[in-house]
Amino acid sequence: MPPLHEIYPCPCSGLLADAYELTMAAGYIQKEFASRASFELFVRNLPPHRNYLVAGGLDQALDFLENVRFCQEEISYLSTLPLFRHVHAEFFDYLKDFRFTGDVWALPEGTIFFPGEPLLRVTAPIAEAQLMETSLLSAIHLQTLIASKAARVTTAAAGRPVIEFGSRRAHGIEAGVLAARAAFIGGCEGTSNAYAGYRFGIPICGTQAHSWIMAHEDEAVAFGNFLDVFPEQSTLLVDTYEVHRAVDRIIALGRKPHGIRLDSGDFLADSLWARERFDNIGWTDVQIFASGDLTEERIQALLGKGARIDSFGVGTALSTSADSPFVGVIYKLVEVQFADHVRGTAKFSEEKKTYPGRKQIFRFSDEGGKFSGDVIALEDEVFSGAEPLLVKVMREGRRLEVVDQDPATTVRSARSRFLADHGRLPARLLALSAATPFQVHYSARLEDLCDQLRFIHV
Amino acid sequence: MPPLHEIYPCPCSGLLADAYELTMAAGYIQKEFASRASFELFVRNLPPHRNYLVAGGLDQALDFLENVRFCQEEISYLSTLPLFRHVHAEFFDYLKDFRFTGDVWALPEGTIFFPGEPLLRVTAPIAEAQLMETSLLSAIHLQTLIASKAARVTTAAAGRPVIEFGSRRAHGIEAGVLAARAAFIGGCEGTSNAYAGYRFGIPICGTQAHSWIMAHEDEAVAFGNFLDVFPEQSTLLVDTYEVHRAVDRIIALGRKPHGIRLDSGDFLADSLWARERFDNIGWTDVQIFASGDLTEERIQALLGKGARIDSFGVGTALSTSADSPFVGVIYKLVEVQFADHVRGTAKFSEEKKTYPGRKQIFRFSDEGGKFSGDVIALEDEVFSGAEPLLVKVMREGRRLEVVDQDPATTVRSARSRFLADHGRLPARLLALSAATPFQVHYSARLEDLCDQLRFIHV
Repeated sequence: MPPLHEIYPCPCSGLLADAYELTMAAGYIQKEFASRASFELFVRNLPPHRNYLVAGGLDQALDFLENVRFCQEEISYLSTLPLFRHVHAEFFDYLKDFRFTGDVWALPEGTIFFPGEPLLRVTAPIAEAQLMETSLLSAIHLQTLIASKAARVTTAAAGRPVIEFGSRRAHGIEAGVLAARAAFIGGCEGTSNAYAGYRFGIPICGTQAHSWIMAHEDEAVAFGNFLDVFPEQSTLLVDTYEVHRAVDRIIALGRKPHGIRLDSGDFLADSLWARERFDNIGWTDVQIFASGDLTEERIQALLGKGARIDSFGVGTALSTSADSPFVGVIYKLVEVQFADHVRGTAKFSEEKKTYPGRKQIFRFSDEGGKFSGDVIALEDEVFSGAEPLLVKVMREGRRLEVVDQDPATTVRSARSRFLADHGRLPARLLALSAATPFQVHYSARLEDLCDQLRFIHV
Repeated sequence: MPPLHEIYPCPCSGLLADAYELTMAAGYIQKEFASRASFELFVRNLPPHRNYLVAGGLDQALDFLENVRFCQEEISYLSTLPLFRHVHAEFFDYLKDFRFTGDVWALPEGTIFFPGEPLLRVTAPIAEAQLMETSLLSAIHLQTLIASKAARVTTAAAGRPVIEFGSRRAHGIEAGVLAARAAFIGGCEGTSNAYAGYRFGIPICGTQAHSWIMAHEDEAVAFGNFLDVFPEQSTLLVDTYEVHRAVDRIIALGRKPHGIRLDSGDFLADSLWARERFDNIGWTDVQIFASGDLTEERIQALLGKGARIDSFGVGTALSTSADSPFVGVIYKLVEVQFADHVRGTAKFSEEKKTYPGRKQIFRFSDEGGKFSGDVIALEDEVFSGAEPLLVKVMREGRRLEVVDQDPATTVRSARSRFLADHGRLPARLLALSAATPFQVHYSARLEDLCDQLRFIHV
């Protein structure tokens, strides 16, 4: 068997970066620009229809930071590129011993957050912090995107279990596993992805495909054979040929399955019909599971019309966040620490303004415990009665106890945090369409700092 | 350093599957259903605005098939799940020695194809073929999606180089690397992803970020420092504060850069203005590069209005295929080979009909060499003058010579195949909006077989 890195991307290669990070790092090393710098990762705007976002992917981001290396072959590759022709040898020596040695603050996974709010801050020698840009964005982006989408889907299901089903159309094999993880954080009860079950302890759910039915000459035999092997856990797929006939065949077998799965057709009519058929013979606990091109809007509409569906499998729409397949995450330099002074940095181009300085998010709640507003402030500001949200998770390149747990515990904590936050959101934000935005302000000190800097650069 | 599989998904775990594949495999093993079966992977419909698709991801799919295994810990995990409580030990023994031993036919990467056309066919003992479903779909889906999107973007750029820039918002770190690979197949000239350069020999392109400018007190010093390190290859980012002032600062330095990069603002006006400024001092070869929220439509509009942009960096829209972030790939059982007969299989539910039998695609061209129509037929049919597109790529679990090349050669061949196919498409299909579809028919024998089967299942 070939070494893993010959098959798939090495999961901790320093080359998992945009090339400009490598050119800038070469510039910083060669110009002896060794200042510590802080970068913050945040989202500029909410994607369409979203009222909030859910932080995800931190555990994978920290895995990357702890393990990132450049192997000799990778360094040789870089040093022979025309792009690096004039770069001095000291840069390639720097890469040989490269370790990430910085400090990281972050929102714990599962935290609900809003545009402008940093969900991660890296403070490290500037070349190091810069080199981590793409991998951090990429790790945080995927799971934040999918956890935020899952929150919509599970909200629409209004307490009925939702199983993540989308590995096959997630963007690659890794994305399938991590989408399952993020969907669980965002309130799903389980996943079809067996590796996500193994790796993260997420409950897995497996029924049967049309191929099982089609491989048998007779649909009833297909059902019977499956019931033989899974007497207690069979969810039988009934739409391969014709739903009513399939349900009648199951009833004729006289063996009660755990449930049936509708995967196409008229879910409203078929669920009402099947429920009545089963109830009539006393099979009131046979579960009706629906899957197939489901979205949060379709789930909400089905339940609104009284569909008798007990749980939902949601695939492509969830695992690709199909209605809005990206979040505009960015990673911006906010401060440079020189020997004798600290300088906040910002960008003033009209469309893409950023705020300087190391920040903290302060969240206020009303007397009923509901979130009432956030203030984005400098990290040393104090707001009594508000909860600071960013937590220190890594010191000098090693993760701190607060995030050093086994993968299953980490993901369960994140899910609990999401559910707790979700319960404290103002009700209007739970709508599937855009509501009056949650109140987020920048502190007066932060606005002042921004204005001073802008004055310098005019 | 922890073993890689503790950090990221093991790239060849058999658990990288939807759980129903495992339950069905358990059913086939326990019921001694050992027939060989054929599954075909195809796309039901074109995504919105698409007129054709580009096959990608085969090399990664074959890597998976050659290397897939179940380790003892994974098998123990499965055997202790409540879902598998009643499954006999022979299934877990089967997994211990599991190897994929099947045959595979596929469209070579870079081939242009249409809905209904199989891009991959697996023939293997039914449990084996079933277990590979999700990983094959996932591997083929991502790169087919992105190569197809890249084809639109590079078509819009009308010969001007396009660089893939989207790793940070691709769906995870693996997706970033593989999106770079797929975008190259779909006609991009390069990528910003350094690992994709290292792993697949794709040209990489690196400029500088706003952080480089912001880290310096003075924009002109930032430009000068970068030119010191990259005297021949500097593409200077000019929109951190104000584009015109930045261009004037570069000119005042008196050191001609390779190019400038516009990343926000009015690309049309700024490119015309900068082009004139540079031309006036004889810097006619300074390249103007544009990036920032670009799409194929925006590129086409900019060039239509006469923007003086020499090359484009396209990120999020390309690497997530944002306007249409999935393709409806499916993997359907088409035939089961019993000891004494072969039976075609199909699904007749109204929305989701499939055709039985092992198929081949036959492509016809007109006298000018342009593609004129395809026939999807049974594999033993013959159509004189037409080119059969599916190629045998794997026999008994080992890849054949036709696809056994180094990763860089493979990706370059795929790109050449795409460019050749693209040059033979009817002109109407090159539009960015939906055109009259390309003619694809099922053969009369295939329609007959389908009708016979439907009759059996009525």
